[in-house]
Amino acid sequence: MPQHVVVIGAVALGPKAACRFKRLEPDSRVTMIERGKRISYGGCGIPYYVSGDISDASALQSTAFHMLRDEAFFKATKGVDVRTETEALAIDPKAKTVTVRHLPTGREETLSYDKLVMATGSTPNRLPVPGADLDGVYCVAGLEDAEAIRARVASGKVGSAVVVGGGFIGLEMATAFADMWGIETTVLEYMDHILPSVAGPVTARMACRHMEEKGVHFRFGEKLMRLEGDGAVERLVTDKGTIDADLVILSVGVTPNSKLAKDAGLHVGPRGGIIVDETLRTSDPDIFAGGDCVQIKNLVTGGPSYLPLGSMANRQGRVIGTNLAGGHARFEGASGAWCVKLFEQSAAGVGLPIQAALREGFDAVNVHVSMLDRAHFYPEKGLMSLDLVVENTTGRILGMQGVSVMGDSLVGKVDAVSALLPHKPVCADLGNLEMAYSPPFASAMDILNVLGNVADNIVSGQNRGMGVDEFEKLWQDRADNGIFVLDCRERDNVAELIARHPKDWHNIPQGELAGRLAEVPKDRPVVVICNTGARSYEALVTLVHNGYAGTRSVEGGMAAVHAAGLDI
Amino acid sequence: MPQHVVVIGAVALGPKAACRFKRLEPDSRVTMIERGKRISYGGCGIPYYVSGDISDASALQSTAFHMLRDEAFFKATKGVDVRTETEALAIDPKAKTVTVRHLPTGREETLSYDKLVMATGSTPNRLPVPGADLDGVYCVAGLEDAEAIRARVASGKVGSAVVVGGGFIGLEMATAFADMWGIETTVLEYMDHILPSVAGPVTARMACRHMEEKGVHFRFGEKLMRLEGDGAVERLVTDKGTIDADLVILSVGVTPNSKLAKDAGLHVGPRGGIIVDETLRTSDPDIFAGGDCVQIKNLVTGGPSYLPLGSMANRQGRVIGTNLAGGHARFEGASGAWCVKLFEQSAAGVGLPIQAALREGFDAVNVHVSMLDRAHFYPEKGLMSLDLVVENTTGRILGMQGVSVMGDSLVGKVDAVSALLPHKPVCADLGNLEMAYSPPFASAMDILNVLGNVADNIVSGQNRGMGVDEFEKLWQDRADNGIFVLDCRERDNVAELIARHPKDWHNIPQGELAGRLAEVPKDRPVVVICNTGARSYEALVTLVHNGYAGTRSVEGGMAAVHAAGLDI
Repeated sequence: MPQHVVVIGAVALGPKAACRFKRLEPDSRVTMIERGKRISYGGCGIPYYVSGDISDASALQSTAFHMLRDEAFFKATKGVDVRTETEALAIDPKAKTVTVRHLPTGREETLSYDKLVMATGSTPNRLPVPGADLDGVYCVAGLEDAEAIRARVASGKVGSAVVVGGGFIGLEMATAFADMWGIETTVLEYMDHILPSVAGPVTARMACRHMEEKGVHFRFGEKLMRLEGDGAVERLVTDKGTIDADLVILSVGVTPNSKLAKDAGLHVGPRGGIIVDETLRTSDPDIFAGGDCVQIKNLVTGGPSYLPLGSMANRQGRVIGTNLAGGHARFEGASGAWCVKLFEQSAAGVGLPIQAALREGFDAVNVHVSMLDRAHFYPEKGLMSLDLVVENTTGRILGMQGVSVMGDSLVGKVDAVSALLPHKPVCADLGNLEMAYSPPFASAMDILNVLGNVADNIVSGQNRGMGVDEFEKLWQDRADNGIFVLDCRERDNVAELIARHPKDWHNIPQGELAGRLAEVPKDRPVVVICNTGARSYEALVTLVHNGYAGTRSVEGGMAAVHAAGLDI
Repeated sequence: MPQHVVVIGAVALGPKAACRFKRLEPDSRVTMIERGKRISYGGCGIPYYVSGDISDASALQSTAFHMLRDEAFFKATKGVDVRTETEALAIDPKAKTVTVRHLPTGREETLSYDKLVMATGSTPNRLPVPGADLDGVYCVAGLEDAEAIRARVASGKVGSAVVVGGGFIGLEMATAFADMWGIETTVLEYMDHILPSVAGPVTARMACRHMEEKGVHFRFGEKLMRLEGDGAVERLVTDKGTIDADLVILSVGVTPNSKLAKDAGLHVGPRGGIIVDETLRTSDPDIFAGGDCVQIKNLVTGGPSYLPLGSMANRQGRVIGTNLAGGHARFEGASGAWCVKLFEQSAAGVGLPIQAALREGFDAVNVHVSMLDRAHFYPEKGLMSLDLVVENTTGRILGMQGVSVMGDSLVGKVDAVSALLPHKPVCADLGNLEMAYSPPFASAMDILNVLGNVADNIVSGQNRGMGVDEFEKLWQDRADNGIFVLDCRERDNVAELIARHPKDWHNIPQGELAGRLAEVPKDRPVVVICNTGARSYEALVTLVHNGYAGTRSVEGGMAAVHAAGLDI
């Protein structure tokens, strides 16, 4: 029997659910309502519109074949009725009605539904600080914001910008400002590194280092107190100082739009996400919800999580469309795969970063590998650095994050781990993961295999690693801790460092170590280092075998030291 | 208790197994013997040395830090004794000895072992045709062959080359000849398309088309009868004609080197691969084997298969090294992930191509998708074409292959499917696979998600697709079968085709179809087509809903038609 489905929200999940449903039940009717003027646009493309990579904002609202996805398009090609500038005021789940208001006219109407879809999305958090409403202070919420920001930077009047919040959107906006418009750009982040909710400190530091080299400034652990200016913003005042700025972007997370659901008596989680089951039904079986307004199961922790991502919304939309038509599609949850392009460097990851794993109560360790992501003899290649988060007791993989100049390749590694993660892999699964190999694309021993094997060695106690962040601290405190740094590379590679630190930096090439053990003191903590960690591991094995039980190796070696910008 | 391990073969698996074992048991002794002069080289790099991308063959035998991996290197850095130019003549499993002969001196010796590793590799097949031993006829077996081939092409005397066999090495060599040396190059393949054992006809055709555009000639279904020439090769004679050539590469597969194992009474499979269990032990528990000389379990079919790949050898080597030291590492088998770079196009895949799936008895269907592998509004993007092989009855995914100009991205998709394949995924698992998304890297609905969803629609009967190969046949026979080709794109896109085929090519834009159904005949088979298959699917839904039950859609649309080079 034909149904009437009402969809509240028409940006990402709404249209997908509506169209899938209409294809399965062409005789049923769908009414999709949207508070804004524009529908079905790719909000993830906003930073590329602001940068100028995309010339016209309408491209974000067009199909691959250049048709504008407006109301007429949805009516003609999808058979879906769309009402824009129409807000849902209240849902009556018992009567199965939605009261809506057409914003330009104020006219209210009550729509009856057989099934309802809540695709209400999220709202950027506005910091409760004075001056947040000054001219020149923006959130990145939709195409209107994007157009306003671009118009301002294109006017040539923006000399300096501050982005508050070092998450995806903040960093993408900072890249757009600095890279394409030459604006003096500062990122202000309250936590101690960028991408604090998704990346570990090593990955974050490497990505940050690259952005710094491109001229972006970072201020960490600093809290915005107020924004000042005469009409338009002129400066930010933090708990540690001031920063001048003609333009400020507030990108400090988003909050799910779930008030409508809550008012209707639907179950909503403690962080505001609508609670749905694996069929994406809310606590009312005739009401579905998905996208930025719901909480979903984290496949690593098993607990609830909030992952407002456009790709998630699209996949959930299809599940809802299928189930509206009586199907049995399921959305089991997500591990949180992400990627971001920052100038020529890319960062990507999936699952938990080390700090989240520890916070969740896992006995976790971070394992780092830096190596070329190609057969080393192949001419075109680039460094890839990966952090693997592993449970010590079980060897279970909890997450992976990394950076590389080979962005597509990095994302491919993350996607492979993402495919594996719901199956609760251990180190050996990664060490033996079958990856396509040919010299132009990978190493014969793929970096993921290497990473799995290094982690396996560390969890089993065969290798004892440390990240560059820990090495930096040990190095800075070397006068106190008396570490003996042993560089296992060939002489030529070490000469400069030896000259700089004749007393603190020692060299025995790995191939000579077995015959020169007498040069290594037995009463000092030995830290071995090489170019990437491979030779220092061999050296560590030799040293441990010869009684240097406490020897540790720097993961990723000098490649990681340089990528992280350590001052040695 | 320290052991003595003998390793026969020192190219890929042997060194990996030896070194891993020595790190775990530094007190044990390893003797690695190798028939050739050189050890531990990356044979997969040979085409890039022949092309000139790699200037010196020694780079293939060097570490990432430019040390030559020779006997002295293995002794100093790994503690492994290596004997080159030393052939294993016989194994006595009861006495636990290997008799070896030093080839330059002829001196024989019997080595005792506690455990033995067979890493004897494979030998390129030489076709049993007259003239195969003429000067200028090469197999690609090792560095010596590579050096001889490169010296010949570098001499400037090679005007034309024929590569017999359209597998990985054959196509890489053809690319090297044509791309870097400007040699008139022909690939002769006995089967009806390139990469016949790993790629389906659509993927193969697209890859072939690109190589043809780059000037490589192909002759399919043609059998080499003999090679002719006066001392040096001058021409090939096939069952269909002759081809002139100054240089001929025979790359028609390899045969596992298992005679030594067989003579020692070890179990060997029907196709010549040594039989090993999941710990990589042979039928003698003290003898391990891996790499090109063993057969392994195919994780898709569950049956035995033969996958001589360098990456496989490396991973197996570690498993053997661990188990030599009393560990419990396992190698469960492989799905057969592969990739190859052909000029600017890349091809990659994993699992079964459609012809292999059918041959194995699966009720399988091939589903094709062609689309941009980026958010369509992002400036840098390229077409990606993927074939998914699916079991009709269960929706189980049996394999995936594809081509793209975005090589790293394609390989990433293949790696994600490779990670999934051992877990026996169905279409919905691919449709909902979590892939990292950001506009510079992917579409919000990743091509893998789209592919899974299209396959789901086809297996469920909601969509009825056909590949471009089937469409080509229908189009060619249109006078007989009376198909009504309905192009659902906008008028501007179709004008040229309409002008060329005013009677046979029809146009109703998808958005107008519901109102113009009267123009579609009810008594002819309708084939809908658009740019990629998305709009034609919408049109198909409309048509089927209105009684055009037999309507079918061209998978990948005109994008696939063009990529495959169909003449329409």
